[in-house]
Amino acid sequence: MPSSVEELVELLDLEVIEDNLFRGRQPDTQMQRVFGGQVLAQSLVAAVRTVQAPFTCHSLHSYFLRPGDTKVPIIYDVEAIRDGRSFCTRRVAARQHGRPIFFLTANFQKAEEGLEHQDRMPEVPSPEECAPAVDSDSTDKQRWLREWAALDVRLVADSREGGTLDTTDHAARSQWWIRASSTLPDDPVSQLAAFTYASDMTLLPATLVPHNLYIRSPGMQPVSLDHSIWFHRPFRADEWWLYDQVSPSASGGRGLALARIFSQDGVLVASVAQEGLIGARTAT
Amino acid sequence: MPSSVEELVELLDLEVIEDNLFRGRQPDTQMQRVFGGQVLAQSLVAAVRTVQAPFTCHSLHSYFLRPGDTKVPIIYDVEAIRDGRSFCTRRVAARQHGRPIFFLTANFQKAEEGLEHQDRMPEVPSPEECAPAVDSDSTDKQRWLREWAALDVRLVADSREGGTLDTTDHAARSQWWIRASSTLPDDPVSQLAAFTYASDMTLLPATLVPHNLYIRSPGMQPVSLDHSIWFHRPFRADEWWLYDQVSPSASGGRGLALARIFSQDGVLVASVAQEGLIGARTAT
Repeated sequence: MPSSVEELVELLDLEVIEDNLFRGRQPDTQMQRVFGGQVLAQSLVAAVRTVQAPFTCHSLHSYFLRPGDTKVPIIYDVEAIRDGRSFCTRRVAARQHGRPIFFLTANFQKAEEGLEHQDRMPEVPSPEECAPAVDSDSTDKQRWLREWAALDVRLVADSREGGTLDTTDHAARSQWWIRASSTLPDDPVSQLAAFTYASDMTLLPATLVPHNLYIRSPGMQPVSLDHSIWFHRPFRADEWWLYDQVSPSASGGRGLALARIFSQDGVLVASVAQEGLIGARTAT
Repeated sequence: MPSSVEELVELLDLEVIEDNLFRGRQPDTQMQRVFGGQVLAQSLVAAVRTVQAPFTCHSLHSYFLRPGDTKVPIIYDVEAIRDGRSFCTRRVAARQHGRPIFFLTANFQKAEEGLEHQDRMPEVPSPEECAPAVDSDSTDKQRWLREWAALDVRLVADSREGGTLDTTDHAARSQWWIRASSTLPDDPVSQLAAFTYASDMTLLPATLVPHNLYIRSPGMQPVSLDHSIWFHRPFRADEWWLYDQVSPSASGGRGLALARIFSQDGVLVASVAQEGLIGARTAT
């Protein structure tokens, strides 16, 4: 996995094979499957590359179909579904070994103005008051640093037994501060892609909170099934953002997590939804 | 629009043209565009028809691309994206006049067991204590009855000025009781499809609550952009379900609404997300 922000930026910069056809490189990793955030972010970058300014991405919906192979590149094949006056839509098929591993649909809009409201940011301690994730559980520290050094991830609080978040409204709650661990390029696509990459971290584990389990607990092999993002307002992924997560439901082997993303000054910048398998099985 | 549950069941029963190719009929309506819930539910039925038991749908994600023409049938073209051991995935393209108007991807799973939790149902008055929607605002009653008689829809409460829901956690909240207005066939697909049809009602208007606007306010022409459903647990669409909605954000001409669906006995049966344009413009 990218061991620095520079490597993360490289990872999210795709090679052009042909119009609407891209190749994404693989980082060095000891992970057994491609990190979902990587295929998600590379797919988004592929879609963005086929859309002209002034259209910007306001939402994406995706399904994970098969585990990604970390040993070979991923091909991203973009289909232009709509090029309208106000909206463009792209569908990206990610392929390896002749089979789709992931599909993403992204919608793009020309900037416009309208009604404004947002949820209020919860009161939380500052990132400086929160412990880095690398110290906050039993993770092998060297392994963490090798795979995740491009991100600064800090646990704020959760609702597990002994946690400080109450369970009145939601059985499962979890809050994290996250940012790229150093400065990203200023362009909006780099910021968007780095956030999208990071948005696949810490989210599915929120579904385990009420069961006092962790993503690396024995027998756990959580697998993302889908991932949706709604981008509400521009923000920087290399400045702290609060990942405020709840899990409304777990049933049938699956858990759903919903999250709000706030910049440190209280602006609601995005919403995320992800369902995953949270048993010991793989989604095939 | 279907003026009875019998007509709704007919509307959601597609004609088979070929393997994986279906035709959906149009109801009599004075609406200018096809109701989003209709194309959503007909697409889901098309997908379901191509998947064998014991797989059942656990989630769907969709994008609305163009207004549907109420005068001609809609063709539903189903692509089998994955037929795995534990999961199947289908993509449905809805077409009219040679162009896609809507895409839906649905995921199917074999029943399994696992971790269980759910949000607690909010305390609300019973459906019998809540006024039917046809009486609760300035809607032309005859028009409502002509278009929406297959559904029984009752406003529970909202957070608009003078409403009874507080705005501490969310600027925009709205709660409805909904059910099919008489008994549906018992089979799970009829129940699922009728719920999916109804899930496109009342949801986007939740984004207007903090602005004291209604979906029929002057200048308003709300348009659905996407629609996602996660089915958590089996339930009946012809028994009351609580549509507990919040809108975390409105910006850039768009509003996002998230909702939890509870059966009357407090079981969280589904979650829904929808973004829409909430200005006076159309999404093309």
